[in-house]
Amino acid sequence: MTDLLLRNVRPMGGTATDLLVRGGRIAAGPAPAGTPVEDGRGLLLLPAFVEGHTHLDKTTFHLPDWLVNEVGPRIEDKIDTEREWRARTGHDAGVASLAMARAFLAAGTTRVRSHVDVDTSGGTRHIEGVLATREAMRGLQEIQLVAFPQSGILGRQGTDTLLDAALSMGADIVGGLDPCAIERDPVRHLDIVFGLAEKHGKPVDIHLHEPGTMGAFSLDLILERTRALGMEGRVVVSHAFCLGDIPERDRDGLLARMAALGVAIATTAPASRPVPLVAACRAAVVTIFGGNDGIRDTWTPYGSPDMLERAMLIGLRNNFRRDDEVAIAFDCVSAAGAKGCGFEDYGLEPGARADLVLVDARSLAEAVVTRPPRRLVVSGGRIVARDGALLA
Amino acid sequence: MTDLLLRNVRPMGGTATDLLVRGGRIAAGPAPAGTPVEDGRGLLLLPAFVEGHTHLDKTTFHLPDWLVNEVGPRIEDKIDTEREWRARTGHDAGVASLAMARAFLAAGTTRVRSHVDVDTSGGTRHIEGVLATREAMRGLQEIQLVAFPQSGILGRQGTDTLLDAALSMGADIVGGLDPCAIERDPVRHLDIVFGLAEKHGKPVDIHLHEPGTMGAFSLDLILERTRALGMEGRVVVSHAFCLGDIPERDRDGLLARMAALGVAIATTAPASRPVPLVAACRAAVVTIFGGNDGIRDTWTPYGSPDMLERAMLIGLRNNFRRDDEVAIAFDCVSAAGAKGCGFEDYGLEPGARADLVLVDARSLAEAVVTRPPRRLVVSGGRIVARDGALLA
Repeated sequence: MTDLLLRNVRPMGGTATDLLVRGGRIAAGPAPAGTPVEDGRGLLLLPAFVEGHTHLDKTTFHLPDWLVNEVGPRIEDKIDTEREWRARTGHDAGVASLAMARAFLAAGTTRVRSHVDVDTSGGTRHIEGVLATREAMRGLQEIQLVAFPQSGILGRQGTDTLLDAALSMGADIVGGLDPCAIERDPVRHLDIVFGLAEKHGKPVDIHLHEPGTMGAFSLDLILERTRALGMEGRVVVSHAFCLGDIPERDRDGLLARMAALGVAIATTAPASRPVPLVAACRAAVVTIFGGNDGIRDTWTPYGSPDMLERAMLIGLRNNFRRDDEVAIAFDCVSAAGAKGCGFEDYGLEPGARADLVLVDARSLAEAVVTRPPRRLVVSGGRIVARDGALLA
Repeated sequence: MTDLLLRNVRPMGGTATDLLVRGGRIAAGPAPAGTPVEDGRGLLLLPAFVEGHTHLDKTTFHLPDWLVNEVGPRIEDKIDTEREWRARTGHDAGVASLAMARAFLAAGTTRVRSHVDVDTSGGTRHIEGVLATREAMRGLQEIQLVAFPQSGILGRQGTDTLLDAALSMGADIVGGLDPCAIERDPVRHLDIVFGLAEKHGKPVDIHLHEPGTMGAFSLDLILERTRALGMEGRVVVSHAFCLGDIPERDRDGLLARMAALGVAIATTAPASRPVPLVAACRAAVVTIFGGNDGIRDTWTPYGSPDMLERAMLIGLRNNFRRDDEVAIAFDCVSAAGAKGCGFEDYGLEPGARADLVLVDARSLAEAVVTRPPRRLVVSGGRIVARDGALLA
């Protein structure tokens, strides 16, 4: 039983108060005698963050040498470069993902959804690595694994069997990838993805980079299957760039269907291409949440395991300038992320798991725009990091 | 005479070497006996940064209270809100700009172009404040002032006279603002702006937020006047958003004319709207350089006086992922900024002013994507900051 009394903290930047934790959960009422006390020094209290779309297995940020990126411009260039680099270097997804998961925890993230590569080169090696990381982090950080066919399913025979194996081994979610643009046979691709979901009784999270009407067509097929298979509330579409570059009327038609089916959107809010706008999605009552995508991997040199930085980038991408808008950007990396990914017992209300972050900021908006050091990170009521450094 | 021998540094991430400074400038040859030595510990050496477009006078980042942003969506809302907020709070542009200039220096920026508001409410008060800051920073940081009619010239009688006064007082550059969208009379606006430039023999830097063909029309008029008045190489267009949302053929036609006239572009590379793409501008041999725009002011809560962060945002906006592309993003906040603004004696070659930054990074790209603390900042050969803190 983990008990803690956090004295003098300002939840979400509001009035200073004390926060009681009993048995690892936020509790109401007075603190029993003997409860350990931590002085919050008037710091801003936030619920610990949710990383809704990353690739723990891909990162190179823990390696001693800087990886010089010389990759070509097409998505296929990036996929091929990565597969070849891995084969050449013997990249260890277990080591990489553990280093990244720990960095996320030190920066205040206690829930992570990670897509994890499954392909005919690496087999389920990455799944094994990230499953080991999940075990190592158990009790400190909740990690969801998406079995992700990064190199496609149809072009490499045996990938469907590997995905099936990954799900049997413990992957939580069935992944998918660009049914038209990469797979070139959307029906066959989606039938495999949704077939695996049905077989294993697991949800779906599909990477959909496809632009414009092609992406809208793939999305249409995804929604059709979500309804036909009764998978309401169990499907996420990651990126959904098409929702940023089709006419608003078409976009709103798709959003209305997504809302009715409880299909959520994971966004990284990239600056360089059209994206689903957070305000439009929320107006349509579609859950949209944030993620970093890969962090310092063979795809991109950018990224940081800091969800406040991702909230800032979501705010910048969506031109969120008002404090109430910046709060929405923060929601994308906190409550909306928990809702979209299905992480339970989230938040600052009594009964929620006591996953908490303290930062030195006057307001929630300031925390997002300045991304101050994490003074304290609490997971399940236990203090796990101070001043950015893990305690264990 | 400021002499210094920087031992064991890696210029731009290259091979470790020693760098000699004599009389405040980078020098070749062996160090004379008695030259003060600083151990660079193998750190990455960069030329100090150039902030090409900011508003030192507007910031609220030094104030004790967080400014809650509740401003409306239109540019006019932001202009009016700011003017009213200032009148209400007695905002001191001198104090604000000095705090911000010092923060820029601590983060490695030794050259700054600041637009400074001139309007019928504040008169030339902001110019006076930033001129005082320029004096205070003399020898440490070079600050250019643009006399900037933030509330327009035509709608507020007397603004032209105030701009004239500001230029007589020491402002270096004539500013302008959206000749069509805000001023609603592009010819009269530009005639005043270019008339002041002619009268004072000073260059021009015009804020052009106007989108699409309207912006392209204003740009066309600006280029026409640049040629007619022989102002080649003395005009900057800030933002130039229109170049991001007109057909490529039209864009390239304008870029070709800009190249021929030596008209440069200042970009903040915002994530939320079309922008001139850096690659297209450079392909057309148009100088494009970076700036933060306002930092934590009544317009926006975002921003940081860190040009490495701006380089990262430029990289993200332009989808610069390869190391050679990230180097271009850095060029926008260094050499291209110096060229576009006309800051002289810039760079790491012998003869250049010894304005230098040391950071802990394995490569230039890593410095941009991780934005590490500034271990050392040198201005004119003098060590002015260590580990992010100014020495004086």
